[in-house]
This record gives sequence, C-alpha cells and structure tokens, in this order.
Amino acid sequence: MRLFEMMKYLDIDTSNLKDFEVKSLSTLEEATPSDLIYIDQDKYLDKLSTCKAGATLVSEKNAPLIPSHIQAIVVKNPHLAFAYLSSFFAREMFEESGAEPKVASSSKVMSGAYLGRDVEIGEDCVIMAGAVIGDRVKIGNGCKIFPNVVLYADTLIGDRVSIHAGSVVGSDGFGYAHTQDGAHIKIYHNGRVVIEDDVEIGANCTLDRAVFGETRIKKGSKIDNLVQIGHNCIIGEHTILVSQVGLAGSTTTGRNVVMGGQAGSGGHIHIGDFTQIAGRGAVGKNLPPHTKWGGHPLMELDEWMKFYVTLRRMVKKQG
Amino acid sequence: MRLFEMMKYLDIDTSNLKDFEVKSLSTLEEATPSDLIYIDQDKYLDKLSTCKAGATLVSEKNAPLIPSHIQAIVVKNPHLAFAYLSSFFAREMFEESGAEPKVASSSKVMSGAYLGRDVEIGEDCVIMAGAVIGDRVKIGNGCKIFPNVVLYADTLIGDRVSIHAGSVVGSDGFGYAHTQDGAHIKIYHNGRVVIEDDVEIGANCTLDRAVFGETRIKKGSKIDNLVQIGHNCIIGEHTILVSQVGLAGSTTTGRNVVMGGQAGSGGHIHIGDFTQIAGRGAVGKNLPPHTKWGGHPLMELDEWMKFYVTLRRMVKKQG
Amino acid sequence: MRLFEMMKYLDIDTSNLKDFEVKSLSTLEEATPSDLIYIDQDKYLDKLSTCKAGATLVSEKNAPLIPSHIQAIVVKNPHLAFAYLSSFFAREMFEESGAEPKVASSSKVMSGAYLGRDVEIGEDCVIMAGAVIGDRVKIGNGCKIFPNVVLYADTLIGDRVSIHAGSVVGSDGFGYAHTQDGAHIKIYHNGRVVIEDDVEIGANCTLDRAVFGETRIKKGSKIDNLVQIGHNCIIGEHTILVSQVGLAGSTTTGRNVVMGGQAGSGGHIHIGDFTQIAGRGAVGKNLPPHTKWGGHPLMELDEWMKFYVTLRRMVKKQG
Repeated sequence: MRLFEMMKYLDIDTSNLKDFEVKSLSTLEEATPSDLIYIDQDKYLDKLSTCKAGATLVSEKNAPLIPSHIQAIVVKNPHLAFAYLSSFFAREMFEESGAEPKVASSSKVMSGAYLGRDVEIGEDCVIMAGAVIGDRVKIGNGCKIFPNVVLYADTLIGDRVSIHAGSVVGSDGFGYAHTQDGAHIKIYHNGRVVIEDDVEIGANCTLDRAVFGETRIKKGSKIDNLVQIGHNCIIGEHTILVSQVGLAGSTTTGRNVVMGGQAGSGGHIHIGDFTQIAGRGAVGKNLPPHTKWGGHPLMELDEWMKFYVTLRRMVKKQG
Repeated sequence: MRLFEMMKYLDIDTSNLKDFEVKSLSTLEEATPSDLIYIDQDKYLDKLSTCKAGATLVSEKNAPLIPSHIQAIVVKNPHLAFAYLSSFFAREMFEESGAEPKVASSSKVMSGAYLGRDVEIGEDCVIMAGAVIGDRVKIGNGCKIFPNVVLYADTLIGDRVSIHAGSVVGSDGFGYAHTQDGAHIKIYHNGRVVIEDDVEIGANCTLDRAVFGETRIKKGSKIDNLVQIGHNCIIGEHTILVSQVGLAGSTTTGRNVVMGGQAGSGGHIHIGDFTQIAGRGAVGKNLPPHTKWGGHPLMELDEWMKFYVTLRRMVKKQG
Repeated sequence: MRLFEMMKYLDIDTSNLKDFEVKSLSTLEEATPSDLIYIDQDKYLDKLSTCKAGATLVSEKNAPLIPSHIQAIVVKNPHLAFAYLSSFFAREMFEESGAEPKVASSSKVMSGAYLGRDVEIGEDCVIMAGAVIGDRVKIGNGCKIFPNVVLYADTLIGDRVSIHAGSVVGSDGFGYAHTQDGAHIKIYHNGRVVIEDDVEIGANCTLDRAVFGETRIKKGSKIDNLVQIGHNCIIGEHTILVSQVGLAGSTTTGRNVVMGGQAGSGGHIHIGDFTQIAGRGAVGKNLPPHTKWGGHPLMELDEWMKFYVTLRRMVKKQG
C-alpha cells in the first residue's frame, strides 16, 4: 500500500513527505527501507541510527531526533496511529482462496475436518473431525491434530506434535491502542505461531499469534489443558506448563522450565533455564536459572515455605 | 402452561387457587399479571406492593404478607419449587425447526458452519468453519465469527463484533436449587446474552446466558482468552478483561474498567467506572470509580504494594 | 504384544527372562499374570507378595526383592522404560473402523455431528452440531451433548447428563517420564472417563482420561465452565465445582463437596464429604469432612477470615 494513501486515511499532511510502497509494518530492529515503524518511547531513540525503516510515526517532540534516512511522520499518538494503519495489513485467516491443500498420502484427514488454502501436511498425520486448519498452515510429519482444534492462518507445526481437542493456535494477541475518549483500537496481529518438534499441547489451550515475528514453543515442551500463551512468548525446550497457567505477552523461558498449575507471568519477563515455579506462583520479574519460586507476590520457594508459617505464629500471638 | 398443571407436578393443593395461563417465570421487578415469581428472602417482601406478578411461590411464614392482587402459593422451599418449574419454560437451543436463516448477500458462511432456525446475519460478516449459530441468533454487520465458536439460541450480536475460535456464548448459567438430601435441581436459564458494537472476544471464553433478562457486554469492550463471564453480568463500555479473568454471576462494571490476568470477582458486585484491578486481584465487594486494587484479599493497590514489603521485613526480624 | 518384542525395543537382554503375550500395562493392585507393571518407589515393595503381575520393570537395587512368581526385568529407570512401552498399548481414539454407531430412534444426531465406530447412544438424547463422539463411547438416556463437545474414545456417560459446548472429555492426562537429558517421554493413557447420571458439565471444561482405570464424576455433580479435572480424579456425588477450578491428577472428593471459583488442588489429595473450599482456595493436603477452608496457603475458613485482618492491623502499626 502506498504511504500517501495511509496518510490520507490518518488525515496527515504529506507535503513534506515522499511517497513509497509500504510493504509492511515492522519493528525498529527488523524493518527494511520499505517498512513503516513507530516510536512511542524515548528509550528507542538511541537505536534509530542502525534502523533501516523507510519511515516512522513519531511525536512532534521526538521528530527532530529521527535520522535523515528515515522519514519522520509527525502524529499526536504514534501507537494509536499505528493501530489504525495495522488494519490495512491484516491478512485473511480463513480465506477460501489459493491453492488446494497438499496432504501426504500416508496422512488421514477425517470427515468433518476443514483445510484452508495453501495448507501443507506431511507424512503420517491425522487431522481429526472438526479440526479447522487455516490458510498457509504447514504441518510436519507424524502429527495428531485432535477434534475441533483450530489453527489460524500461517501457523507452522514441526514433527510429532500432538494438539488436543479444542485448542486454538494463532488467534489474535490482545493488543490495542487507546483513544483519548477511552476507546480501544485493535492492533492487527500479522505474526504467527511456530510449534517445534515433539511438543504436546493439551485440550482447550489458547496460543496467540505474534504482532510481528513469532510466538514460539520450542521442541519437546509439554503444555497441559486450558493454558494461555500470550503473543510473542518464546517457550524454551522441554518446558512444562501445567494446567491453567497463563503467560502474558512476550514472556520468554529458558529450557526445562516448570510452571505449576494456575501459575502466571506478567509480560516482557524472562524465566531462566531449569527454573521452577510452584502452582499459583505469580512471576512479575526476570528470574535467574536453576532457581525455585512460589507465591504471590513471588518469593524464593524456601522463603515462601517459611513465610506463612512465621506469619501464622505471629498472628496467633496477637490473638 | 396452565398454573394448575404446574401445581399438579409439584403436588400442591389448588383448592384455594385460581387457574391461569402462566406465560413465563419472572422476577419481582419485571413480572406481568401472567407471570409466576418466587419469594425466598424477607428483603423482597417490601417490594411486593408494586409487583404485578399473577402469582408467587412463597413459604408458609411469609404467605400472609403477600398482597391480595398476587396469588400466594405456599411451598416448603420456594427456590426449589421454582427450579422444578423452570424446566417447563426451557427453550430448545438448537431446534432445527422454524424459518430458514436470513444472511445478507455480502456475508459469507463458510462450509462446515451451522446456522440454526430463524437466524439473521447482517452485511459483511464471516461465519467461519465449524461455528454453530443457535436458533433465533441475530448478528449485525461486519462481524467475524471465528471457527468453532458456539452461539447459543437467542444471542444478540451488534456490529463489528469479533469472537475468536472456540468461545461459547449463551451457555446455561450455573444455577441450582438444593433438595434436602443434597441433590441440585437445575434452574433453566431463559435469558440471553447481548454483545454490543465493537466488542472483541478472545478464544475459548465462556459467557453464560441470564436466568431472566440479559447478560450484556457493552460497546467497545475487549475480552482476552479463556475468560469466564457468569450469568447476568453487565460489562460496561470499553472495559478490558485480560486472560483467565473469572466473573461470578451478576457482577456489573462501569465503563473503562480494567481487570488484569486471572483476576476474579464474587457475585452481585459492582466495579465503578475506570477502576483497575491488578492481575490475580480478587474482588469481593463493591468498588468505587477511579480506584486501583490488587491482591487477595483485595486492598487498594498502594496498600497492597507496601503490605508484603512490610510483612517480609517483619518476618525477617522474627527469623 | 510379546514381552521379548518389547524388551528388544528397550535393548534389554532377555536371556534370563521367559517370553509371554503381554495383554496390558497395569498397576500393582490390578495386574493379572498377563500384565506388566513397574516399581519405582520402595513403598510399593511391601505389596508385591499379593501382586499377580506376570512381570515388573524394576531397578537393579530392588530386583532381589521381587517375589519369584513375578519376572523381574532390571532397567535403569523403571518409570521411563514404562513410558516407552506405553506407546505399544495406545488405542486409537478416532479410528474410523469398527461397527456402525447404534443410536436409539428417539435420539437426534444433528447434522455436522460426528459419531465414531462402535458408539452407542440411548433414548431421548440430542447430539448437537459439531460434537465429536469418539470410538466405543457409550451414552445413556436423556443426555444433551451440546455443540462442539469432544468425547474421546471409551468415555462412558450415564443418564440425563448435559455437557455444554466446547468441553473436552477424555483427553490424555498430563503424564511424562523424564530422560537424563531432560526430555519428557509420553505415558500413553489407556484408561477412560466415566460420567454418572444427572451430572451437568459447563462449557469449555477439560476432563482427562485415566492412565489406567478411570477418571469418574459421580452422580448429580455439577461442574461450571472452564474447569480442569486431571487424570484419575474421582469426584463424589452432588459435588459442585465452580468456574475455573483446577484439580490435579488423582484428586478425590467425598459427596457434596463445594469448591469456589478458581480454587485448585494438588495431586493425590482427598477432600472429605460436605467440605467447602472458598473461591481461590488452594488445597494441598487431605481435608476432613464437614469443614470449611480458604486461602493460599490453605487455612480453616475462620482462621483465614481473621488472618489478614490481624496482619493489616500489625502492618499499620509498623507503618
């Protein structure tokens, strides 16, 4: 889409701008000269010298700091303007156009399953009744997609992956920009979900697609039922997430992390290799590897185990 | 259904009663002269003078207090008797009888979607594979109903609403009356769910229909994945409910309320405009507007932030 | 399958073993002479004298303690070896082979529902659009299986059971053995789920099948939306589980237990008859009958109610 067409939609004066074909919205780190980005926090300004974007949405205050190789488009609220523009780049998830699906002859697609366009399915898979496989999804070999699973468009699945009934992979992440009068404007999510080899996902889970780039479940990880994985999470190899765990967007874990039932994490947090979170533990900060935690607020497990014992003794004395 | 037929089912003597055609079960506030209600708490007695119901189920103790324009039907346990009678008024959800669905020509119903009888779908909608739209559901313009969504009968959907894969709208609320020997008798839910314009609902959510009247999600609200909304909840405009939030029945919120991930509320509670609940916050009482809360038990956020810091210092001193 | 074939797969020397047809993997208590078991904890050694298994996987250390009527198969990690072998006994869930389903003439199977092989459905049932009924499932009389419910193979359903949209019954339990390098090897679950008469299950719940034997929901129990029931749980009669409750594997309850919203239990725990857990309560130990509990860590409800009141007073004094 042409930049000027987008600017017209935002009602922005283009007299100081140069038109070009905008290929996609992107991030500061990954943008190419045909991409558009936005800057809404001062901390990103430092990184602009190496940024290759063709143009950026930016506030009036920060506009003078944009290097000359990037067109500065001044808007009141860059995040909000970005959200409005994201709708132009939204891809259809279940389009019913494109090439017929390719399914290896050793794989079985049960009656009542739905395959979208340009889907590819490898050897020895079973796609069970009621499963809905969105456009351009690629599934490796030896996978079991149980009944009524939904894979949104562009999901990439490795080998020997099982996804149990009712789970949803690749739905839109929960991201909105906010207008001055309190309305929430959807940020269309054009990233995808990647599930590596030997992952098993339980029933009725939800794994959101990334804004850009990927939400990724690395090889050998095991996810129980009713687990929520937010957009852009990266789950390390051989990680175990027990039932009803909820991970906010951009949570990342190392390998062999274990999170007990109903545990949760805030967003933009890293949990180190082999670290364990007790059931119901609420992770609100980065955690080092090889440690154990529990509670809300989160404490090291040793402290948590003693904490309430001591408190109860103190309360009894008061009583 | 005739009152006497219902009384026969309950094995109640009708010699002092007058028969009439009971149109529906209802509430004290909304009943018409052809409706039946029940009184199981003394606090409702005051309001009876303005109540228009034709008859009420009532305990022997309270029977003398029923005004003469309402027939008093004496039963041991009014709530239980009501539950038994509710089955007579249960409507079929997925009936396969009635008029053919009406779908605007600009809308697309994908193969594998199911439309019930008397369904109406407006312009520019997509009903995706595996979605099941119950009888008498009405959907406005520009809506996206993603794969395997289930809308129970009578659900009313506004314009530009998106409901992501696997979400269930309009299932029965969790309401039972209890017999003396501990069995639970279902209260059939004959209300509906109304979703206003510009609402987005994530994947695998559950929104229960009302007992009477409505469960309502007001315009512009955004609901993340795996969220539970109990029967008769009213969610105010532009409210945000993050993943795994659970609202018990009859929770109401003002506008622009925010509830973080895994937060919850007890029933019959109001959360004021613009009030924010931190993730995992457990709301057990009415909350005023423009306030911030967290924790379980719930405290104002400022107090909660300091509370555990102080406790940990106190515990360390003890140690 | 022949024992020696299995040993070959595990690369185990069979020169001191006697080959036989292994009928199934089983438990110490239930094994027959044609079954194989494993011993990975010393506490099970006492019970071996009455065990009827044909053979057991066992560590070198414990091998001399195996009675002579049971063949001792020495392996490094009995649990892991067992997990590897479990794949040989995995049954197909949605096979598309076997006898045509038998459906009583008074029952209705809506278009878009899927019935597997050898399914039996009694009188006056409705199987709604998008429901997927796995092989060998038996459903009694008067049941309502709402849209997009998935019943995995071998599930047994009593009379007058309702299962609301999107719930999944009989998916694999979350059980793995672990290799030395941190990979998780699936333990195939060959047990089943049994749901007794007059049970109602809400929307988008997940109930896992047992490893061996049964996960069982006893008669009259009522389960709200988004509830997780782990493998081998036994839920007592007339029990109430409110929305978002999560029960880890092998939790058992007595009759008329009540668990409030978002409550949870660790595994291998018993909750006594008529005991009540407040919303968000975290059950980590066996609980006696007729008691009330809340909080995390769990306390008797009376203590819990006062606990935080006292703490807040203490903290205020400090401040």
